Amino acid sequence: MVRDFLPEGWGVQGERGIAFVVAGPSGAGKSSVISELLRRDRRLDFSVSATTRPKRPDEVHGRDYYFVSQEEFDQLVSSGELLEWTEYQGHRYGTPRREVVNRLAQGKDVLLNVEVQGALAIARAGLPCPVVLVFLVPPSWEELVARIRARGTESDEALRERLLIAREEVRHIPEFHYLVVNDRLENAVRELEAIVMAERRRITRW
Amino acid sequence: MVRDFLPEGWGVQGERGIAFVVAGPSGAGKSSVISELLRRDRRLDFSVSATTRPKRPDEVHGRDYYFVSQEEFDQLVSSGELLEWTEYQGHRYGTPRREVVNRLAQGKDVLLNVEVQGALAIARAGLPCPVVLVFLVPPSWEELVARIRARGTESDEALRERLLIAREEVRHIPEFHYLVVNDRLENAVRELEAIVMAERRRITRW
Repeated sequence: MVRDFLPEGWGVQGERGIAFVVAGPSGAGKSSVISELLRRDRRLDFSVSATTRPKRPDEVHGRDYYFVSQEEFDQLVSSGELLEWTEYQGHRYGTPRREVVNRLAQGKDVLLNVEVQGALAIARAGLPCPVVLVFLVPPSWEELVARIRARGTESDEALRERLLIAREEVRHIPEFHYLVVNDRLENAVRELEAIVMAERRRITRW
Repeated sequence: MVRDFLPEGWGVQGERGIAFVVAGPSGAGKSSVISELLRRDRRLDFSVSATTRPKRPDEVHGRDYYFVSQEEFDQLVSSGELLEWTEYQGHRYGTPRREVVNRLAQGKDVLLNVEVQGALAIARAGLPCPVVLVFLVPPSWEELVARIRARGTESDEALRERLLIAREEVRHIPEFHYLVVNDRLENAVRELEAIVMAERRRITRW
């Protein structure tokens, strides 16, 4: 229908795939927001990252992450299969290129949950689609500290390091397109849904 | 809360006012979509335009338009009170500057329903806020013709002229940010709501 009105060479982004990248400090609640968003929007497909960090009890290999050994990760890096990879607290995280490209080829939009540096790397990776960068934050610094503590898996040392890293990460917010505050899960999910819907209607030159 | 995380000089657009401009060919259904959107979003305020065209039976002076005489319109133009004005089918339409500026000063977002040329003029007018341009189209050309006919107030001559103007107007779609297809009112309103919500979360330098 859009074809009736748009000149040759122009379209709306929703006619092809879009990569939505969600990043933010540890404790922002990325995983909860993302899984609820995926449940509501069937055109969005999750890009599963590879990581060398240990699996948490509630995580599933191939759904939350591909949990790989150091050697397997080295292999992914050297064969050029990662779109980007970063190190975070001694563990490596990477985005397999095929996770993104295969989904775009199926006409899906792709949702990525990555570290802040990874998000910026993906924006520069020359993907054949628009890349939308969303930064998720908790409502305040106090709340961020409380959430990491509540997770209960952290030593004081690790907590301090996470907070230092978070301070560094938020300095990159101006390089992102959208800032979503995760005060209540429902609000954050609705805002992310709106961002996805709006970007699909955005006019672009192909 | 956003202040906790953003560096000095940066913000999200929703912290201050935004001007949302909806334009599109006659028959796209702008008025219905806009009145439903205003009903749902109390932070959005409608900017009432001035026009020299006759009032339709269902319209109200000061709500839909300020219906003014040729002399009154001349006066608005010469005193510089119009942000932009355009002529359309022998009638003049203009946006009083105070309609926009007063609402921004009250911390409201402003919604404008203007002609296509007017929308582009508003984007260039140097308003002290972000200007978001949305182009609304009916689902097809056939539907556009049917809708104008159904209005029943048009001679064949006027109908032909409207269609010629519409052909010219859609050539400007690439100068807009978003394209919304008004296939069903509910869908179009939801997409506009999403655009408004997303733009409020957009990161900007002040």
